[in-house]
Amino acid sequence: MTDTNDSWDLAGRLRVLNRAECVRLIESTPIGRIGFMSDGAPLVLPVNFVWHEDTVVFRTLEGQKLAAAAEQQNVCFEVDNWNDSSHTGWSVVMSGPARHVTDWAEIEQLERLDVVPWAKGEWRPLWVRIEPRDLTGRQIG
Amino acid sequence: MTDTNDSWDLAGRLRVLNRAECVRLIESTPIGRIGFMSDGAPLVLPVNFVWHEDTVVFRTLEGQKLAAAAEQQNVCFEVDNWNDSSHTGWSVVMSGPARHVTDWAEIEQLERLDVVPWAKGEWRPLWVRIEPRDLTGRQIG
Repeated sequence: MTDTNDSWDLAGRLRVLNRAECVRLIESTPIGRIGFMSDGAPLVLPVNFVWHEDTVVFRTLEGQKLAAAAEQQNVCFEVDNWNDSSHTGWSVVMSGPARHVTDWAEIEQLERLDVVPWAKGEWRPLWVRIEPRDLTGRQIG
Repeated sequence: MTDTNDSWDLAGRLRVLNRAECVRLIESTPIGRIGFMSDGAPLVLPVNFVWHEDTVVFRTLEGQKLAAAAEQQNVCFEVDNWNDSSHTGWSVVMSGPARHVTDWAEIEQLERLDVVPWAKGEWRPLWVRIEPRDLTGRQIG
């Protein structure tokens, strides 16, 4: 597990989440952010996703920036939720390899998931899967 | 301006935001996510920040992962907001160099900003400033 404690000030109202808590939060969250290398620089883009068999699954299109993420050995995926008035919230940070799903049986399985693009859909989706090797979560407040 | 159109499906309910709209949204948002390189891999971490003189400003501590971000020529900073039930939301993505603020006059100015760590504060903050060279925004729905 990567120590991402230092995403906040350590003193005070911080609590480390265990894996079960992280997974419960991931499952209840429709939007995450993928961090990956694009043209030699880090890029962070939001995607709507599902958590399926301990992996992050989302759809994109050939030729899009996001498609490039699927060839990388190390990407980061982050989900969070915040309450501005109470200064409370949580964050889960994952990292691991991403890949295009090319196996037809696997694609057929994924097509049954409820992964609908929030913008009007395209007819030719590309499936991307991230296998988190590190998964850490923090709750604040 | 970097084209980050392809963070979503292009068809349908997508709208590109102009710079003034982006800035208004950034200013109204307390939490963003910085994407940077950490130990050779992309890392995405949430931070509470303010938008000050067309830059992103936040605080961290010496020795933390976030402190390393401040030495990098290319970091990404992302803010967003989503409504799960209506499948609407927006995202603003910035990229540019980050730096430690070391000038005392500048630090004094920043100390007057309302940048309070959400977890209990430490007494020795390090100021980090990101100068967005690219700034793009998208609204969905």
